[in-house]
Amino acid sequence: MRMLDIIEKKKLGQALSGEEIRFFARAAAEKSVPDYQLSALLMAIRLQGMTDEETTELTLAMRDTGDTADLSSIPGIKVDKHSTGGVGDTTTLVLAPLVAACGAPVAKMSGRGLGHTGGTLDKLESIPGMRVTLTEEEFLRQVRETGVAVVGQTGRLAPADKTLYALRDVTSTVDSVPLIVSSILSKKLAAGSDAIVLDVKTGSGALMHTLEDSIRLARTMVQVGTLAGKPTVAMISGMDQPLGTHVGNALEVREAIDILAGRAGGDLKEVSLTLGGHMLVLAGRAGSLPEAEKMLEQALASGAGLRKLKEMIRAQGGDPAVCDDPGLLPQAPVRRTVTCGREGWVRRMDTTALGSAAQAMGAGRTRVDDQIDYAVGFVLRVRLGDRVLPGTPLCELHARTAEDADRAEEAIRAAIEWSGAPCPRGQNFYARITADGVERFRDGMD
Amino acid sequence: MRMLDIIEKKKLGQALSGEEIRFFARAAAEKSVPDYQLSALLMAIRLQGMTDEETTELTLAMRDTGDTADLSSIPGIKVDKHSTGGVGDTTTLVLAPLVAACGAPVAKMSGRGLGHTGGTLDKLESIPGMRVTLTEEEFLRQVRETGVAVVGQTGRLAPADKTLYALRDVTSTVDSVPLIVSSILSKKLAAGSDAIVLDVKTGSGALMHTLEDSIRLARTMVQVGTLAGKPTVAMISGMDQPLGTHVGNALEVREAIDILAGRAGGDLKEVSLTLGGHMLVLAGRAGSLPEAEKMLEQALASGAGLRKLKEMIRAQGGDPAVCDDPGLLPQAPVRRTVTCGREGWVRRMDTTALGSAAQAMGAGRTRVDDQIDYAVGFVLRVRLGDRVLPGTPLCELHARTAEDADRAEEAIRAAIEWSGAPCPRGQNFYARITADGVERFRDGMD
Repeated sequence: MRMLDIIEKKKLGQALSGEEIRFFARAAAEKSVPDYQLSALLMAIRLQGMTDEETTELTLAMRDTGDTADLSSIPGIKVDKHSTGGVGDTTTLVLAPLVAACGAPVAKMSGRGLGHTGGTLDKLESIPGMRVTLTEEEFLRQVRETGVAVVGQTGRLAPADKTLYALRDVTSTVDSVPLIVSSILSKKLAAGSDAIVLDVKTGSGALMHTLEDSIRLARTMVQVGTLAGKPTVAMISGMDQPLGTHVGNALEVREAIDILAGRAGGDLKEVSLTLGGHMLVLAGRAGSLPEAEKMLEQALASGAGLRKLKEMIRAQGGDPAVCDDPGLLPQAPVRRTVTCGREGWVRRMDTTALGSAAQAMGAGRTRVDDQIDYAVGFVLRVRLGDRVLPGTPLCELHARTAEDADRAEEAIRAAIEWSGAPCPRGQNFYARITADGVERFRDGMD
Repeated sequence: MRMLDIIEKKKLGQALSGEEIRFFARAAAEKSVPDYQLSALLMAIRLQGMTDEETTELTLAMRDTGDTADLSSIPGIKVDKHSTGGVGDTTTLVLAPLVAACGAPVAKMSGRGLGHTGGTLDKLESIPGMRVTLTEEEFLRQVRETGVAVVGQTGRLAPADKTLYALRDVTSTVDSVPLIVSSILSKKLAAGSDAIVLDVKTGSGALMHTLEDSIRLARTMVQVGTLAGKPTVAMISGMDQPLGTHVGNALEVREAIDILAGRAGGDLKEVSLTLGGHMLVLAGRAGSLPEAEKMLEQALASGAGLRKLKEMIRAQGGDPAVCDDPGLLPQAPVRRTVTCGREGWVRRMDTTALGSAAQAMGAGRTRVDDQIDYAVGFVLRVRLGDRVLPGTPLCELHARTAEDADRAEEAIRAAIEWSGAPCPRGQNFYARITADGVERFRDGMD
C-alpha cells in the first residue's frame, strides 16, 4: 500500500477503504510517511469530504494507534462529556461534582487550552497544589473512592491525532467535519467510557459558526459514536457570547465554585445542569431529563456538589479551602473596572476576539509550550440583549500590568457591537441530536 | 504575510493576489516555508483551481525566482518549442536542425527523462562525446555560429519549480492545469526566447488523457504565454501510440537521423515538420504554414538538415560520424524480434505502459540519480489500425539481458489490444490553439 495512491484516490473524491484508512492512521502515529504527504491528504479530505463510514473507520483506526483506558474496575455506567470548545465554558467543573454527587461515576480526561478557548486542565491547575497528571491506577482508585476525577490523559491515547492535529493547525485543515469528528472521538473512545454527551458549540466563538454546520458536525459525531457502540447524545449550545461571565483560568474556577455554592446562576449554570442531566440519564441514574435536572438542583441546593468538588480537589493534592474562600486562588496585581460609554443594547459579541483578548493577557497559549498566568482574565458584566447606560460596568479586568489592561480593554470594546434599539438575548441550546435524529429548539429548550 | 492565510484563502476557493502568489513562489525557491504547507497549498490549488490571471502571476513569479537567459546577442527571432512529454517523441532532434537550416536560430534548453517519457538531453548524450552542459557564453556562441544548440539549462532557471515539481510528484498534484502551466512556462519564459510553440500531447501516453483536458491545458498555456508577452501557439498532438517507431535513447537518435537522411518517414516526421513549420512562421522566416513546411521539406531533401545536425553535434563535442553510420551509436548486446501470435487489427496501445517497458529495460530513470543505458529500448513494428497475421513482426527488442528482453516482451504484448475487425489509425493533430481561439481538426490537419 502506498500513501501516494491513497492521496490520489481521495483527491479524485473516492471513498477510502478501511485498510487504506488504517494505513493512514498508523502512518500518522508512527510518522512513517512524510508530513507533506499527510498534509496533502488532509487537504484532500477537507475539500472532498468523507462518508460517515470512512469517518467511523478513521476514528476507530486513530483510536487503535494508542492505548485504551480500562474503566471496568469502576462500578456503574461511565458517561463522558466533551465540548468542542468555547470561551468562559467551565461546565466540566460545575457538572462533574454534581453528577458524581448524584451517584454516577465521572472518570474524565480533559485537555489543555490552545488558541482562544480555555482548557479544563489549565483551570484546575490554578488551584494551589492541584495535580492533573495521575497514573492510571491513581485515576481509577480516585473515581472508585470519591466518584470523580478530572485529569490529563493517563496513557498514550490516539497518538495519530497528535500528529494530525498539529499538521491541521498549520495547513488550514482544522475545519473539516471528518477530521474534527475523528480527532475528538478517537480520544473519547480511547478514554474508555460507556456513553458520551457532546456539547457542540455554535456561533461567533465556536469552531462552527453557523447552526447548520454545527448540526452537521454533531450528526456525524453521534453517528460515529453510535456506530462505535457507545450511546451518544449531542447538544448544540450557543457560543455567541462567553458562556460564563468569567474568562481566565482562576476566574473560571471561581465562577464554578460560586455556582456550586449557590452564589451565582446564569447561563453557565443552566447549560451545566442540562448537560449533566443528559449524563445522569445515560448513566441510568434518572429516568428522564427533568428528573435528572431535579436531582442535580438538589445536589446543588444541599451543597453536595460543592462537597464533591472539595473531595476531588483534596484527592488530587489541591487545597480544598479555595471552595470556601476563592480569594485563595491566584490574584492579578492590576484590577480595573471598565464602564460603558454610551446608552444602548448589546447586539453582538465577537466571542473569538474576547477569548483571544484573555489569551493575550496571558490566560492562554499561542504556542504549546507557552506559560499560562492563571490569575489574569476578565469578568464580563454585560450579556447579549442587555441595556446599558453611560457608566454601566462593562467588564472587570484582571491583568498583569496596566499596559495589558489597556490592550484588553481596547480589544473587549472592539469585540462588542451596540444597537440603539432592543436586541434579542442569547440562546443556550439550539438542538439535540441523538441516533434517532435532530430535535430543534425554537427558543430555549422546551 | 503568512503561508497559513494563503492556504486558507485557496482552500475556500478564492483567488490569490499577486503578492500572495509571489510569496508562495519565493517560499518554494528558498524553501523558507515547510514542505507540508507547500503541499497543502498544492492540493488546494489542484482541487480549487486558479484563474488565468493567477496562473500567469504564478508563472511569472516562478520565473522570477531564478536567472533569465539573455538571447539578445543572437540575431533574429528566437522561437522555442516545448512538448508536454511523450513516448518515442524525438521531434526536437528532427526539427531543430531543419529549422536552423531554414535560417531561424534554435537556442534550445531541453530536459531529461523521468517516468515513462524520454528526455532530449539523455538522447543526445547517447552520441559518443556529446556535451549538453555548456556555459551561457558557449551556448550563445554556438547558436550565433551554427544556428542551433540543444543543451541543458545554462543557469538556475525557475528554482521554485524544482521544489514544487518534486513535491507534486509525491503528493498526487501533478495533474493540475495551473501547476503544469506554471511549471512549464516559468522555465520557458526564463529560457529567453521570443515566441513559443507548444506540443500538448493527448491520449494514453500523455499527461492529459482526454482531448478536452488537453485543450484546456493548451488554452491556459497560450493565454499565459501571450499575457507574458510571448506569441504562443499550441498544437494538440496524439499520444495514443508512441510517436516514432523507436523507443529508447540511441534508438530514437537513430530514427531522427534516418528521417533527416531521407531513409524514414511516418508520424514522427510529419509532426516534426508541422511543429517546425509553426516555428518558422513565428520566427518570421515563412509567411504561412504551407510555405514553411515546404521550406523544411526542401531542407530535408537537400540534406541541409542532416548537415546542420552534424554541425551541432561537432560543436557540442560529439562524433558527427554517427549521422552517416548510426551503427556507431551504442548497441545493446541482446536483440530479438518478437512476432504477432494472431491475426487481427491493432485497436489500442497503453502508451504509458510501453514507455514504462523501455524505462524498465534501463532506458529511463525511476529515480533522478538512476543511470541510463543508452543502447536499450525497442522498435515497434505495428501502428494503430495495422492488420497483422501470425508471424508479422511486432517489435524488435534491444536489451541488456535475455531476462530483460523477456520482461519487455511480456509488457509490450500486454500493452497492445487487438480487434477482430478493422480499427481506425492514429491521428497526429487534433487542434491548434492560438490567442485567437481553438481550431479543431476532425481528421488529420489538411
